Amino acid sequence: MGSIQVPESNVDVLIIGAGPSGLMAAAWMAHCGVNARIVDKRGTKVFCGQADGLQCRSLEIFDSLGFADRAWKEANHMIEGVCLLIRLQNPGNDGVIRRSDRIPDTIVGLSRFQQIVLHQGRVERFFLENIKKYSKDQIKVERGVLPESLEIDLSKVDDDSAYPVTVKLRQLSEEEATPPQVRTASKAPDGLFRSNLVQEDDEEDLIKKSQARSGESEIVHAKYVIGCDGARSWTRRALGFELDGEATDFIWGVMDIIPITDFPDIRMRCAIHSAENGSLMVIPRENKLVRLYIQLKEVTPDASGRADRSKITPEIIFGAAQKILSPYKIDYEYCDWWTAYQIGQRVGTTFDAHSRVFLAGDAVHTHSPKAGQGMNVSMQDTYNLGWKIALAAKGIAKREILSTYQSERRRVAQDLIEFDHRFSRLFSGRPAKDVMDAEGVSMEVFKDAFLKGNMFASGLSVDYGASMLVVKAGDSLKQGDGSKVLRAVTAISEEDFKKKQSLASGLPVGMRFNSFKVLNQACARPWHFQERLKADGRFRVVLFAGNILDAAQKARVDKFCAALDAPESFLHRATPPGAPIDSVIEILTIHSSKRFDTELLRDFPAILHPFDPHTGWNYDKVFVDDESYHEGHGEAYKNYGVDKQRGCVVVARPDQYVAWIGELEDFDDLQKYFEGCLVLGNRSSNANGTTLPIRQ
Amino acid sequence: MGSIQVPESNVDVLIIGAGPSGLMAAAWMAHCGVNARIVDKRGTKVFCGQADGLQCRSLEIFDSLGFADRAWKEANHMIEGVCLLIRLQNPGNDGVIRRSDRIPDTIVGLSRFQQIVLHQGRVERFFLENIKKYSKDQIKVERGVLPESLEIDLSKVDDDSAYPVTVKLRQLSEEEATPPQVRTASKAPDGLFRSNLVQEDDEEDLIKKSQARSGESEIVHAKYVIGCDGARSWTRRALGFELDGEATDFIWGVMDIIPITDFPDIRMRCAIHSAENGSLMVIPRENKLVRLYIQLKEVTPDASGRADRSKITPEIIFGAAQKILSPYKIDYEYCDWWTAYQIGQRVGTTFDAHSRVFLAGDAVHTHSPKAGQGMNVSMQDTYNLGWKIALAAKGIAKREILSTYQSERRRVAQDLIEFDHRFSRLFSGRPAKDVMDAEGVSMEVFKDAFLKGNMFASGLSVDYGASMLVVKAGDSLKQGDGSKVLRAVTAISEEDFKKKQSLASGLPVGMRFNSFKVLNQACARPWHFQERLKADGRFRVVLFAGNILDAAQKARVDKFCAALDAPESFLHRATPPGAPIDSVIEILTIHSSKRFDTELLRDFPAILHPFDPHTGWNYDKVFVDDESYHEGHGEAYKNYGVDKQRGCVVVARPDQYVAWIGELEDFDDLQKYFEGCLVLGNRSSNANGTTLPIRQ
Repeated sequence: MGSIQVPESNVDVLIIGAGPSGLMAAAWMAHCGVNARIVDKRGTKVFCGQADGLQCRSLEIFDSLGFADRAWKEANHMIEGVCLLIRLQNPGNDGVIRRSDRIPDTIVGLSRFQQIVLHQGRVERFFLENIKKYSKDQIKVERGVLPESLEIDLSKVDDDSAYPVTVKLRQLSEEEATPPQVRTASKAPDGLFRSNLVQEDDEEDLIKKSQARSGESEIVHAKYVIGCDGARSWTRRALGFELDGEATDFIWGVMDIIPITDFPDIRMRCAIHSAENGSLMVIPRENKLVRLYIQLKEVTPDASGRADRSKITPEIIFGAAQKILSPYKIDYEYCDWWTAYQIGQRVGTTFDAHSRVFLAGDAVHTHSPKAGQGMNVSMQDTYNLGWKIALAAKGIAKREILSTYQSERRRVAQDLIEFDHRFSRLFSGRPAKDVMDAEGVSMEVFKDAFLKGNMFASGLSVDYGASMLVVKAGDSLKQGDGSKVLRAVTAISEEDFKKKQSLASGLPVGMRFNSFKVLNQACARPWHFQERLKADGRFRVVLFAGNILDAAQKARVDKFCAALDAPESFLHRATPPGAPIDSVIEILTIHSSKRFDTELLRDFPAILHPFDPHTGWNYDKVFVDDESYHEGHGEAYKNYGVDKQRGCVVVARPDQYVAWIGELEDFDDLQKYFEGCLVLGNRSSNANGTTLPIRQ
Repeated sequence: MGSIQVPESNVDVLIIGAGPSGLMAAAWMAHCGVNARIVDKRGTKVFCGQADGLQCRSLEIFDSLGFADRAWKEANHMIEGVCLLIRLQNPGNDGVIRRSDRIPDTIVGLSRFQQIVLHQGRVERFFLENIKKYSKDQIKVERGVLPESLEIDLSKVDDDSAYPVTVKLRQLSEEEATPPQVRTASKAPDGLFRSNLVQEDDEEDLIKKSQARSGESEIVHAKYVIGCDGARSWTRRALGFELDGEATDFIWGVMDIIPITDFPDIRMRCAIHSAENGSLMVIPRENKLVRLYIQLKEVTPDASGRADRSKITPEIIFGAAQKILSPYKIDYEYCDWWTAYQIGQRVGTTFDAHSRVFLAGDAVHTHSPKAGQGMNVSMQDTYNLGWKIALAAKGIAKREILSTYQSERRRVAQDLIEFDHRFSRLFSGRPAKDVMDAEGVSMEVFKDAFLKGNMFASGLSVDYGASMLVVKAGDSLKQGDGSKVLRAVTAISEEDFKKKQSLASGLPVGMRFNSFKVLNQACARPWHFQERLKADGRFRVVLFAGNILDAAQKARVDKFCAALDAPESFLHRATPPGAPIDSVIEILTIHSSKRFDTELLRDFPAILHPFDPHTGWNYDKVFVDDESYHEGHGEAYKNYGVDKQRGCVVVARPDQYVAWIGELEDFDDLQKYFEGCLVLGNRSSNANGTTLPIRQ
């Protein structure tokens, strides 16, 4: 065997694991045109079960990639949430419904999307098709491929052109790559093989078996590696990193069934706290399915932390559900999938090694699935990381921005497990018998947690701290470990920041760019502004041009645009020679004059609608905050909290987070922002060239 | 060759021609599970150019099939229309814009969709994927297949089980099936081979050539044949049918380009009437493309009706456009497609032969493409016809309903060509010099036509006359030729009809079922009600249940439901033994009580949310007219003009047209409606069986 040549190759980015987190990373590479590979040890993709709640923020992200509409169309929409307390069955109360509260499941006005439910297999399908389309078939998931060793050449980690990470990959046989689903006598496939109740680090076994065969391995040299390989991450173990946290005694079962029941709220999200029999959560799904999360009071782990496997059957789980729901009756003929898990919350201490190997998703945080958070937070990890790696790999951004991954995402993971910790214990606890029962959980406390959970579950409360990428007050070292990158150049005092933030009070720096409707100046089409912030790796400078018909304001806009269009501006210097002027940074304008009174070509400087000698003027970059014919008035200035006369300038990162706010006169600060995070070239030879009008 | 056995086979429906009209017919067969074939003489599908405006109604129809979202996402949305008069270039007026009017391109409030523009190739792609999905790969377009002969066995045309139409089909070679696109020296593909300026009945040639080869033909026996084979329809000629009408001297050119221009309204639909140089229409499209319709004043047909081909080049067409647009400048580097046509309007005298062979689309009506009507009306022809043939072929509906195709669609075609006739002449005419110039077209007249065109172009003004399928006042014989089928059983006096119509004044009988938002009672999800009227071949009885919490009203609802659920009701008798109760006719309920005060299982009779022993209660059939959390109040009762206390009953046909309106007490009339058009079985053995609740 020693004589066989093992093939070697280079790749910019190697992604290990093709779940939602790995696929999100691959999607960025596809959208940014980065040379990447993605491997997964499993031979087949997930077809049913597993995580399935999609937050508003995840849908906004899907929209930035181009497939939110597909998820929105197929999913069950979560509209109403209900808290119920089912007390002991007293004579005469049969069939009487006691809803303690009915609330909108997504807080009204938070996002243009609402929370939906769709199983992970469909989400992965959307990703696969999207990656195929945008990478022009270049990036495909390589299945049945297992990493065997990982080495980082420390002498090369600071060299931009090097491939310092070496990974040995092994191709498994079809049999080896097939997960041992359907282990029990039950007809429905179970997910126990991925449950934390069953130990299943099979990599070593698989590698040993595979090594007996020859010629099935290869060596890959990568600039960057992203480990998205789940709670028992091989990549994490290869790096020797740990998860901090603990497990509890609470064990829950999960079943996806088509219910046959007289329980009236089966098509709403219900949190049911029974007096004696434990708790249950109802999550209505697509295709008549309902997911039940069922507290298994009669199953507890032994001293070793393992539960009695014989007690984990669909029959026992469903029996517990029937008890909790009594006096209502529930039954099923069809079960789509089931599993069980032990509640535990853990978070990684370190999210990356030398800014060359990164961990994301379950590989750095695990928690209970009930809050519907797992898939979302995992995808959002790599939505944060992917563009940073892509821009670094392409030489557009400085490699230093990569350290913001840990500072931004570890705090989110910590918030998540803290929330989950409180929520899970509350939910698994005994309900209070009456107001004097201090040990039990009162209905009020329970309901409060349910409401707070809704805000958290939207994914929209994420607020990144100060860094070279986010110009706001605060010390990056206090924002989270690893943020050694805040530059003096972008540092800002608390007082100054308050002033800048007040220019666009509806766009908090560090949070995602909220969306309101604006009209295209040239054709009057209404757009949710976020629809114009596509995930293509570009930063956006959003010029709120204010009242462009006012001569003084027009002069301010002209001056800002003249600075933008100067050869030494960040815009020209960021643009590669010969490339269109909007290749790296796109300028988008929203003005507040009446659309009927303004003319794109007459009233707006050419740099705002750049001229291309092959395709003419650009009609897709200038928008107006005005009434639409068919879809009302977006009131964008009002909602963004921007002055209609004077406007302001806002930078959105490629992942739609607000990065910088300033006056039209703050061009120098804006220039410094981009000098801080991007690799800028010399005076661009493009300057003025791309904006030459045809009419002199 | 005589010794070779020609294969023979039976098929329920044979569709000739796979343009939008034929594909719509095939889509119905796929959605209704009918055994069908679709053939096209061309070897490849259309990739660019051709008709591209999509009316509101076409989008509603696409939504009923399941792909409106795809068209909506890719298309350019037509928001604003502009009428412009460009006068002679006087010194000093350079660059001054004179818009005579700016109006919404789609009348506000007419539909949940607005008019969009997307080229035919994408529309055909959506159809092909939809047909593949719903027919489970059973129906595929067979390309390069030409019909050679068609015979109808008159002795069998009244036999439901017979296959009276015999068609001989011939498989062409790849070369024969390739259309002679790109004939000129121009780089852009041209569409002249489909233009009415070029005679091109190549079937005979193709058949002759093909006959020289052996073993390439087959014989198909069909129950029904639909000829969707275009303006020079082979099917129409095989039947010996004629088109009535005339051509004019007006010749227009069409170009799809990416314009490089300083003309300010290039991204709006513009009707431009120049003082001296003729007219131009601007239709902005997707991907920066713009379609220009250009009047060619310098090209006229000769005595034989043919134009001088040497004058039909992109250069000459574009030169005319530049003249019309002056003093604005226009140029292009990229041309996607171009063609030219002679304005003419013709309509078929007869739309079917013995209710066995039908003609649809351009095969029975031709007109100028400028009004953006062609593809829409053609698709709507087969949207009207397809479900009728499908239900007749399946034995669900009586074959007599097929004669309503001609009575309903010929009038639409006549209206269309009449409109087109007036509009085209107006548009091609000379603009008036001043108010005294009686021979010229005044700006006011021109603008008025533009506005009227918008209403017509929505596709929503279609109003079908009285027939066995549409219960309204009027004599079917006067509604249109061929309507020999109005039955005494559904005839209604003018006075009685007024009363019935007043029960739902917002749902005119004969017009499409308008859409407003309602909420699902069980889960609070808002739906545009039309989204629940999917194209699956089912009739819908919409029960406006009124105030269900009022005891007297509840008694009315209970009585209506008891009649529905009786074994002899049309509902049970229309349902095949063993099939779900909603297989042929679906009952949908909209009530007007507050959602929070009502309970699906408690307040609504079981027949309104039927119980299935395998999947439990149905949660998708009862809706409420109430405020939603995120999308406002649909005010459905108010908009439909239905009394909130008493409600009413409305029947929607499978194609969403309103067919019948009555009181809850008019059950007998409702029964008669379905006895008139459907094949009803005996007392159903399902009665009561499917609605047994689990709780006694």
